[in-house]
Amino acid sequence: MSHKKLFIPGPTEVLPDILEAMAMPMIGHRSKDYAALQGETTPKVQQCLYTKNQIILSTSSSTGLMEAAVLNFVRPGKKVLACMCGAFSDRWAGIAKANNKEVIELKVEWGKGIHPEMIDDILKKQAGEIDLILLVMNETSTGVMNPAKEIQAVVNKYKDAGVLMAIDAVSAMMAVPIHTDDWGIDFVLAGVQKAWSLPPGLAVAAMSERAIERAKEVPHRGYYFDLLEYVKYNEKNQTPSTPVISLINALNVMCTRILDKEGLDNRWARHARQADMVRNWALSRGFELFPEKGFYSQGLTCIKNNKEINVADLNSALGKRGKTISNGYGKIKDATFRISHMGDIYEKDLAELLADIDDILGYK
Amino acid sequence: MSHKKLFIPGPTEVLPDILEAMAMPMIGHRSKDYAALQGETTPKVQQCLYTKNQIILSTSSSTGLMEAAVLNFVRPGKKVLACMCGAFSDRWAGIAKANNKEVIELKVEWGKGIHPEMIDDILKKQAGEIDLILLVMNETSTGVMNPAKEIQAVVNKYKDAGVLMAIDAVSAMMAVPIHTDDWGIDFVLAGVQKAWSLPPGLAVAAMSERAIERAKEVPHRGYYFDLLEYVKYNEKNQTPSTPVISLINALNVMCTRILDKEGLDNRWARHARQADMVRNWALSRGFELFPEKGFYSQGLTCIKNNKEINVADLNSALGKRGKTISNGYGKIKDATFRISHMGDIYEKDLAELLADIDDILGYK
Repeated sequence: MSHKKLFIPGPTEVLPDILEAMAMPMIGHRSKDYAALQGETTPKVQQCLYTKNQIILSTSSSTGLMEAAVLNFVRPGKKVLACMCGAFSDRWAGIAKANNKEVIELKVEWGKGIHPEMIDDILKKQAGEIDLILLVMNETSTGVMNPAKEIQAVVNKYKDAGVLMAIDAVSAMMAVPIHTDDWGIDFVLAGVQKAWSLPPGLAVAAMSERAIERAKEVPHRGYYFDLLEYVKYNEKNQTPSTPVISLINALNVMCTRILDKEGLDNRWARHARQADMVRNWALSRGFELFPEKGFYSQGLTCIKNNKEINVADLNSALGKRGKTISNGYGKIKDATFRISHMGDIYEKDLAELLADIDDILGYK
Repeated sequence: MSHKKLFIPGPTEVLPDILEAMAMPMIGHRSKDYAALQGETTPKVQQCLYTKNQIILSTSSSTGLMEAAVLNFVRPGKKVLACMCGAFSDRWAGIAKANNKEVIELKVEWGKGIHPEMIDDILKKQAGEIDLILLVMNETSTGVMNPAKEIQAVVNKYKDAGVLMAIDAVSAMMAVPIHTDDWGIDFVLAGVQKAWSLPPGLAVAAMSERAIERAKEVPHRGYYFDLLEYVKYNEKNQTPSTPVISLINALNVMCTRILDKEGLDNRWARHARQADMVRNWALSRGFELFPEKGFYSQGLTCIKNNKEINVADLNSALGKRGKTISNGYGKIKDATFRISHMGDIYEKDLAELLADIDDILGYK
């Protein structure tokens, strides 16, 4: 198959040196070489997430760590508050229910964001019942980015009541800064196939001491996603079961690239420029943005298809030019389309893509 | 790090063309290209496992699918019968308990095998209580290979009573033939980093119609390892959450290599010869084999360290020659050592390894 450059919200485009890192010769996962690899990678991930917390390297998609949050942080008799604003946050509520947890649903219309005061209103009355809040920072289905920092600040007021928040930062982590320790985040997770720009199969999380203490109070956390086991094995720079070594190697190479070559601040600035670039293009061509104003994602743009273009035809024409974008997701599949601008997609790539779209749609 | 050839029981040695397959440019996991890949891979895996059953491709280590068996096949009020004969089968019983299942323990001394009549004796009395038997076909910790075919034949007598068996074929699958359909296996799983000779991060299982029907009777199967979701997504050649695409590509390439280049029968014959070779070497040098006679693994040999050699020193000397073997596991760490001869380790490699060991230990 001939490769199409990926402007889809994951898996994102992967650079050749990272693909090369995927092809490393194999090593034993209980060897010194492996421990050296994990020991080298972990502090770099911590630096990327501005944290001293435990780093969890889970051989799974991010869905696995979404389930881990539900399994590890809810004590018997306590409830989950699910902030629902799109397909992936709706799904997280479903994951909680599939694990027999009682869920309070905070639902907003797709395209709308979660406002901090919505959480405050609920916690004012029900903080004592709620052990865990589920927040999707960047709803990949709607292009909504929720204000994680401000929401975390609200949650922090209720920490003494036992409220803990898990943040799904899939398609946000490494596209925007997440100041884990400064913001007081207890658990933040992502898959590496989004703004980390690696192939899929590994999920990463940072887990606070407070989250560890909470997990200790929860019986029957399952086995594969028992986070306390990960913390225990971290001591010797290993994982409880065999890890996806090739991807951890690729993550290590990627961290070095981000920290030493691009620089974190440059990365955030580049993503901000790229998001602007796509949003401005969409607006200037007469499209509307799907998300509520002020809640625009820095990783991908969800564009309302108010001009009723044929997205399938557009994508097929783009395919012939070696590029691919994404249609809408779930119930807004036909009403929107999405352009991803995170990870190792650069301004030059986006300029080419937008010129191609203009050309195909006859916009100039 | 300079590469050491792996004679350890996983991850096993990976060939260059498979490493190259790991470096494939990324594709979307909801794209036609991905569906074509999964659609091409699945029938080949079925052919390798002599089955028409559903193939589950799980982005996890095999531990994940061991947990899946426990989550999907035990109805409320029913019990698990765990056949325990080493570290990994002991752990499976632990996985069942971590998920709040009631476990009947059939325990034999490490090094001994599970005899079919042991299972028959229990089922004669308790078949009605037991929903799921957990059998590790090849105990990687002790080098014991249990007679899966004969044990399955016993279990099949009790199918009407609702007894189902899950077989962990880690370090057996692709080292010995597993005639899934002929033997009547309902669920057999393995990680791909053993006799499949791929890097770790993907687990594979075959799941029968009967197993699917059972799962439908089990509420709260969790989410990530809800096997019915995998079956549902198989219809469109996709997986419920983002799969480890690079490894599925490598699996596809490996299947072609096995089926078209080596041939299944040749593969089984080669593994039998390689197992003989290592066992004969050990015995001729005055070592004893750790497993009970008749229960020798075809994938790896666990050797009793009755000559009290220093395995760490041996391994360190082997390391300088670009090779590595494995010490014992768990409570027999010092009393045994292990040489793996499965997957893409060939007779020539083993001859070199054994000559090196002879040389280092002064056996010639």
